[in-house]
Amino acid sequence: MHLPQRQLGLRIENMVTEYTATARAHSNIAFIKYWGNRDSGIRLPANSSLSMNLAALHSTTSVTWSDALEEDRLLINDEPAVPAALLRVSAHLDTLRAELRSTLHADVSSHNNFPMGAGIASSASAFAALTLAATAALGMRLSERELSLLARRGSGSAARSIPTGFVEWHAGSADKDSYAESIASPDYWPLEDVIAVISRDHKHVGSTMGHATANTSILQRVRVETAADRLLSAIHAILARDFEALAPVVEEDSNLMHAVMMTSKPSLFYWLPKSLRVMLAVQEWRRQGLQVCYTLDAGPNVHCICGAQDAAVVAARLKELDPDIEVIRSAVGGGAQLLTANDRTD
Amino acid sequence: MHLPQRQLGLRIENMVTEYTATARAHSNIAFIKYWGNRDSGIRLPANSSLSMNLAALHSTTSVTWSDALEEDRLLINDEPAVPAALLRVSAHLDTLRAELRSTLHADVSSHNNFPMGAGIASSASAFAALTLAATAALGMRLSERELSLLARRGSGSAARSIPTGFVEWHAGSADKDSYAESIASPDYWPLEDVIAVISRDHKHVGSTMGHATANTSILQRVRVETAADRLLSAIHAILARDFEALAPVVEEDSNLMHAVMMTSKPSLFYWLPKSLRVMLAVQEWRRQGLQVCYTLDAGPNVHCICGAQDAAVVAARLKELDPDIEVIRSAVGGGAQLLTANDRTD
Repeated sequence: MHLPQRQLGLRIENMVTEYTATARAHSNIAFIKYWGNRDSGIRLPANSSLSMNLAALHSTTSVTWSDALEEDRLLINDEPAVPAALLRVSAHLDTLRAELRSTLHADVSSHNNFPMGAGIASSASAFAALTLAATAALGMRLSERELSLLARRGSGSAARSIPTGFVEWHAGSADKDSYAESIASPDYWPLEDVIAVISRDHKHVGSTMGHATANTSILQRVRVETAADRLLSAIHAILARDFEALAPVVEEDSNLMHAVMMTSKPSLFYWLPKSLRVMLAVQEWRRQGLQVCYTLDAGPNVHCICGAQDAAVVAARLKELDPDIEVIRSAVGGGAQLLTANDRTD
Repeated sequence: MHLPQRQLGLRIENMVTEYTATARAHSNIAFIKYWGNRDSGIRLPANSSLSMNLAALHSTTSVTWSDALEEDRLLINDEPAVPAALLRVSAHLDTLRAELRSTLHADVSSHNNFPMGAGIASSASAFAALTLAATAALGMRLSERELSLLARRGSGSAARSIPTGFVEWHAGSADKDSYAESIASPDYWPLEDVIAVISRDHKHVGSTMGHATANTSILQRVRVETAADRLLSAIHAILARDFEALAPVVEEDSNLMHAVMMTSKPSLFYWLPKSLRVMLAVQEWRRQGLQVCYTLDAGPNVHCICGAQDAAVVAARLKELDPDIEVIRSAVGGGAQLLTANDRTD
């Protein structure tokens, strides 16, 4: 009987040694954005950031280390990945191999339940799940902090998909103190992210390239210098469950990041006309009394952060505004979870 | 025979003394923007700015000072002006009365040949024409610099509608050294402004109010600090007739001003979804080889600055993009002109 490798766990057969594990991590939406690195080689960010995990959006990633492999392999949603994606995952596996003192190659299979590359951070959930699965397969049970540090090396925002709920990523000053931790659990404040999916197209400039352009904007320095103030305001607003205090700082921070993007050289526009239409509508709905504010990552989709009581109304209004807009709703999500490792189910 | 007062010139009749003049001034579009004041009382700007006069868009303003008037009167396009407009014009007439040592009131009639309040600076051409007509009616023949200084007090950008062609407004450090002067005549470089009129609605927040919010954005300081560099780049590009050098600095400066607006408290969005659609199209057309770049004032209309040889193509493409977009084309305009004064026609 032939079983897919990832279901086999630890196996010794014909002298092939395999170690396998599967993990799941959620996407996250940043309230205070990560944009630009102090050290891009290790993804040491220019500023601390803050996000909310998204329960409805996740990556499930299986990793099988095997001495029968001569190179790393990567399937995304059951399809062989494009070379650029394999290269990036393989580079992250190199980081993990160095950390774990391993020379094995890995077979990686990742499934996202949401569209990739449209401003919903698939790399965050994917690299968080990859980091957890890859380390657990080799029997390492790392602390949340260690996992967050390692996930960061693969994709900056993946650091924030390791801890649960509302998450702060401490910029730190070196590899070993740049990690994320939870400031509140998912049930602390039942916000919802009502995502207006404006486009499923792959974004024209990926985040990794985008980060590298941040310093070409004259606005990046002041965005970074003032980020700690906004972070503190946002944390206070979350801990006080104060939507009126949270909304303006979330929108300001999103506008600041996009202002940096637009004034980079060359200029980067992630907003589409429909994005702006939704943003202006959200501002109007808030003036009318709904608990809703917008934020956009490096893509055209508009994340409408809502008080849970208003999420259904916001979702309905988005469809009224434009029936072509696909709406995805997500509650606050938990941290990265190990699903199976070497025949054990956690 | 009854003649309209403004055609009468100096007249003494039943002991009524009247002084009248008519002037015309063009609108202008800023390449380096004016946004925010160092001293709002005298409209001393935060930074020097640069613009191009627009031949096709003008205000024609007649002023009759009369000792028979007990208060100032204002017609705009033959309709009595709303109280706010009259108050603003009357405040400017106060400035002129103080300067001219006059106690007369004035009858003002102004005609614009373009929609007001939709991002085409009607106040610039109107206050430039008003300043010239009002001073000329009283027999004052002020220098261009004096006129520019005085026009600035009525509406900052009006300072730039006094000189001809391509115009630099020196921010200065006090009332007496904040004025505009021409850096090149209209025929020096035959650019065109192809304006995509997105909306004729009156803008929701007027420029005067908007300027007052500029300092609430954390981005205003860096925009102002770096404006002189962009101004110099733009002047060099104009003098060298170098469109490739001009385009990125014009777009960057526009994006910077709108970034300041969006991150002001409360945030100001002048862009509409259609504005963004045109901006993105303009960037694409430039990549395809057309000499075109965009800039937006405090309104949703997109000014497509074109090399003259590409203006017709850009106008046609705007209509293809959206037939509802009204397109206005304008060559580079001259300075403010006196049309008639006290029976003399200049």
